[in-house]
Amino acid sequence: MPPSSQRTGEFLSDQGLDGFLFLGDSLCNPDIYYLSCFLAPDRFALLAASSLSILVSGMEGGRAKRESVADEVATTSDYGIKEKLANFDRPEDAYAAVLKEFLRDRGVRKLGVPFDFPVRVYSDLTADFEVSVLESPASKWREVKTPQEIEAIRSVQRGCEEAMKVAVGMIRRSRPAGGSLIFEGSPLTSEMVKSAIDVSLLRGGYEAQETIVAGGKDGADPHFGGSGPLPADSPIVIDIFPRSKRTRYFADMTRTVLRGEADPEVVEIYGAVRAAQAAGIGAVRAGAPGREVHAEVCAVFEERGYPEREGRGYIHSTGHGVGLAVHERPSLSEVGGALVAGNVVTVEPGLYYPDIGGVRLEDLVVVKDDGCENLTEFEKGLIL
Amino acid sequence: MPPSSQRTGEFLSDQGLDGFLFLGDSLCNPDIYYLSCFLAPDRFALLAASSLSILVSGMEGGRAKRESVADEVATTSDYGIKEKLANFDRPEDAYAAVLKEFLRDRGVRKLGVPFDFPVRVYSDLTADFEVSVLESPASKWREVKTPQEIEAIRSVQRGCEEAMKVAVGMIRRSRPAGGSLIFEGSPLTSEMVKSAIDVSLLRGGYEAQETIVAGGKDGADPHFGGSGPLPADSPIVIDIFPRSKRTRYFADMTRTVLRGEADPEVVEIYGAVRAAQAAGIGAVRAGAPGREVHAEVCAVFEERGYPEREGRGYIHSTGHGVGLAVHERPSLSEVGGALVAGNVVTVEPGLYYPDIGGVRLEDLVVVKDDGCENLTEFEKGLIL
Repeated sequence: MPPSSQRTGEFLSDQGLDGFLFLGDSLCNPDIYYLSCFLAPDRFALLAASSLSILVSGMEGGRAKRESVADEVATTSDYGIKEKLANFDRPEDAYAAVLKEFLRDRGVRKLGVPFDFPVRVYSDLTADFEVSVLESPASKWREVKTPQEIEAIRSVQRGCEEAMKVAVGMIRRSRPAGGSLIFEGSPLTSEMVKSAIDVSLLRGGYEAQETIVAGGKDGADPHFGGSGPLPADSPIVIDIFPRSKRTRYFADMTRTVLRGEADPEVVEIYGAVRAAQAAGIGAVRAGAPGREVHAEVCAVFEERGYPEREGRGYIHSTGHGVGLAVHERPSLSEVGGALVAGNVVTVEPGLYYPDIGGVRLEDLVVVKDDGCENLTEFEKGLIL
Repeated sequence: MPPSSQRTGEFLSDQGLDGFLFLGDSLCNPDIYYLSCFLAPDRFALLAASSLSILVSGMEGGRAKRESVADEVATTSDYGIKEKLANFDRPEDAYAAVLKEFLRDRGVRKLGVPFDFPVRVYSDLTADFEVSVLESPASKWREVKTPQEIEAIRSVQRGCEEAMKVAVGMIRRSRPAGGSLIFEGSPLTSEMVKSAIDVSLLRGGYEAQETIVAGGKDGADPHFGGSGPLPADSPIVIDIFPRSKRTRYFADMTRTVLRGEADPEVVEIYGAVRAAQAAGIGAVRAGAPGREVHAEVCAVFEERGYPEREGRGYIHSTGHGVGLAVHERPSLSEVGGALVAGNVVTVEPGLYYPDIGGVRLEDLVVVKDDGCENLTEFEKGLIL
């Protein structure tokens, strides 16, 4: 879902550039995938100039022509990479020579590259081109989703909720016994729940890295994935952030559940997180700075007597953008700037105490002019 | 499975450096994962100096201490990232200030960074440090696998073969009818086979991106993933390159099968590819240059009357290294240098004709002093 060539033209004209060059693999670099819609595990170059050109290996030429939205596909074979590899001592020098010819053929002299552009090729290019290192315009454009992108994210969110249902269902069907949960006769482990989540996601065409199913004290570290038997009578944090294999868009959600007897303190903590999340979601609207949304969340925690203290309590920011990357801008944190209609952000307050564990609730919302639309439909409730 | 600190020390001493700095996320940057054994979707810094230090966000500190092999974990919170974000206009400047303090505290003045280091941070660092852009020593070290790494790859290869068995089994159990394959009453599609492969992999703790199941003319483009109904009487290329979710190592294999009646020309092509692969595998040994292995493969194709001509025939190189990346060095191609015992490489000749399709066979082998060990046990045979 790349931006119009008009938008690229305006950016280049404002910056006084002939073109903007990206170099990376589109599996890992979302800007390159966003602009090309060409998924490739090996590095290729993308030039956004008066038209959109990509430079791929000879092997990828046919697929790139068929699958990418580039106006033009060139290959390193067209530029004699084989001969250059034989003539240069180092493969990097051969590649740089190809890239320079590719750029010259497209009339480029003044060139922009993004912050994360690889330094070796940058150095090679500065010998022959006027190169400016700039914030990637594509990263900026990606912050505001088109209706089509929002539908892609909504669809992943549905798959994410199917998987959450499976996970919560396993915990609900478990029997508390001696502090542990017994599922179909065996102790229920974090790994068993994660595996069931993976199977559910895969059926829908989704995949997830690093799913979190962390019970009891494991949940006190918000990024720890969890392992081993899951406890009864303690909160279990389930955080799933799958991506669609087809569209490459992510969703992201968290629920915290407890099977067995809940300590009243945990119930209170859950109530505080739920209230803080409601306050955060209520503060999201176009024009509101992300730091204001974060401040609303912090205010609820302060009011309820859960200040952050020595790395305990509310120890992370309120949310982040979600799209072709699972963590992208804008940020709902102390430094978050004004939100824009079409941003898709998480609202995910949590409280963490080493002796109790963690409680986090995370929804995914679309910023609107007058508030937000919550893409998350999954119920909230601590005790199963 | 990181290298010894002695090895790092020798590299730094040879290059006259105080430290070598990596910056990236270890999901996408295999060097960083190799050195830290810390898997994180967000960017972090890794300094290989007299000891191995990583600089992660405050949120990741606890997990990094538990999971990484770094000698020391520092966090951006330790360096006042919050205050710096408030004081600097741009978050990049705040991060650079943190990184500089982190480096100064570790006595670093002369610093190496790899070719793919992000240019913006590089530029910031050059103001205060003497920075050399060098080939990553970790990429070089990764080329030679330890026995433990070879076992990790062997184990993924077993999972890969389980999935291949499922895929080939579906094609074998299909019934040729009117040029198509009918599986349990419906046309067998590339997507159905890929989905069954994914489920098999997931059960074993593996995952695969971009699996290829390409029948008939779809197979003529070696990188095209394939789609839609699979043909009877035509070769179907199945290329699976999964990674272990646990160890992060890849395997890689390809088989080509045909259900129904084979054209004698396809049988001959298959025979040529099989002979070429045998010649390639026979040529692999420590000391043999990758280009020689490639030349042996090309010689078989020439002898049998299958020269490369106008982008048809044998249009790619013979193989590549496999490890924490699916494509890494060394290369079995026209520019491939001497192999070393402990390299793990594919040997994957193929022939491609737009009117016929593709035939490729790929095994994964470990380079030994006197030849190679084939990690691939899966049978070869065209006609099912």
